[in-house]
Amino acid sequence: MNKLFIIKIGGNVLDNPEALKKFLADFASIKEPKILIHGGGKIATKLGEQLGIQSNYINGRRITDSQTLDVVTMVYGGLVNKQIVASLQQLGCNALGLTGADGNVIKAVKRPIKDIDYGYVGDIKPDSVNSSLLYFLLKQNTVPVFAPLTHADGTMLNTNADTIASVLAVALGKHFDVRLIFCFEKKGVLRDVNDPDSVIRHLPKSSYNDLLTKNVFADGILPKLENAFAAIHAGVKEVLIGEASDLTKNTGLETEGTLITS
Amino acid sequence: MNKLFIIKIGGNVLDNPEALKKFLADFASIKEPKILIHGGGKIATKLGEQLGIQSNYINGRRITDSQTLDVVTMVYGGLVNKQIVASLQQLGCNALGLTGADGNVIKAVKRPIKDIDYGYVGDIKPDSVNSSLLYFLLKQNTVPVFAPLTHADGTMLNTNADTIASVLAVALGKHFDVRLIFCFEKKGVLRDVNDPDSVIRHLPKSSYNDLLTKNVFADGILPKLENAFAAIHAGVKEVLIGEASDLTKNTGLETEGTLITS
Repeated sequence: MNKLFIIKIGGNVLDNPEALKKFLADFASIKEPKILIHGGGKIATKLGEQLGIQSNYINGRRITDSQTLDVVTMVYGGLVNKQIVASLQQLGCNALGLTGADGNVIKAVKRPIKDIDYGYVGDIKPDSVNSSLLYFLLKQNTVPVFAPLTHADGTMLNTNADTIASVLAVALGKHFDVRLIFCFEKKGVLRDVNDPDSVIRHLPKSSYNDLLTKNVFADGILPKLENAFAAIHAGVKEVLIGEASDLTKNTGLETEGTLITS
Repeated sequence: MNKLFIIKIGGNVLDNPEALKKFLADFASIKEPKILIHGGGKIATKLGEQLGIQSNYINGRRITDSQTLDVVTMVYGGLVNKQIVASLQQLGCNALGLTGADGNVIKAVKRPIKDIDYGYVGDIKPDSVNSSLLYFLLKQNTVPVFAPLTHADGTMLNTNADTIASVLAVALGKHFDVRLIFCFEKKGVLRDVNDPDSVIRHLPKSSYNDLLTKNVFADGILPKLENAFAAIHAGVKEVLIGEASDLTKNTGLETEGTLITS
């Protein structure tokens, strides 16, 4: 099968114009089929403040009321997505911006209210990806660029970018050898959270289970690792967790970050 | 050749939720291949005011400085486009939002500075449409929904929605029998601007030339008519100018608005 890179970048890159510029140049230079998923960054929060809309968080998750939904739809789906698309086009990379609503590429449901009402937040079900449209676009050398938004019942929904990256990787894992890359602010998963050079270069499932029982992992990385192994379990060939500035190395054979495999 | 409807709606519909809802239901019910192009409406101006950005106009055209460009990219490319896409999806119409930047569908240039610097405004050259991507999407029963934005040299550009509709009609006129429909606030082109019932139902080129010499047309409609006949001249089969609320009739054989032909 052909290789496919599915790459998620978060706020720390989006909020830094120089870092974003370097990242997009590295991304554009990848020769294989590729998909980019971007998060939101601080721009939405800043715009919300300018408009007098308070950002509310519960357990680290933004509560998306209707005003906040408008802000994230504008910022993620409009400003951030289109600036990235225009920049990639200039770099000769035929980017095409998408949300889950466009072409009904990702079906979602509004998160059911249990203890907390998260508002207009999308939960994605497995098997909810219209992979035939994505497959066609990739075959035409077009590069999908996803904003972290989905839809249900006629409304947009704010949706976790890591989750979008994972479901895309799982769906397209049927057609491609997918390497799913999560860019974050560290070089990779650290053996010692206080030592930035203690990157675990290769983390197969067996080592993961071993290190998990030894409580090696910092709390912050655990959800990412669970997410990564869920993707591997669902058929994604490789997941890589690393720094955005190492993208070129992390799309090669000798990776800088943490390569996760079955 | 198959029929294709290319339909442009402007601010008067976008700014009225009830009118927009009816319009989108009518649009979704069109069985033939179709493309929607939306304008901006007052939302961008309102958001700009809330953010303390002044809207400047010269000769009725918005001057797009970098702050205004961010606002229109957010509002046209994000909020308006994605709300329309989500609404159409709910109506069972597989909409996919686009700007000229996405898939490099429309190539533009930043308007050259002569007497006036319009700022980040896009001018579209003929033969600048990537019609193969659009053709594929239409064949898959996907419905492109265009925001009035294009791109050049790594930046988005604010672009006239009527112009986008026209260039798309011309480019796709090679593959389809295109009816290009401009929705505006009147029933059609009026013989007497003070009599809303004086709609000219059919306006072939010969009648147009005749009525032009008799100074029948109000000044406001002249640019639209020039635009329409330019499209006819470039191979578009039919142009219809009518009211958004008459869409169902205006996509049929017995049209309510003004049907322009060669």
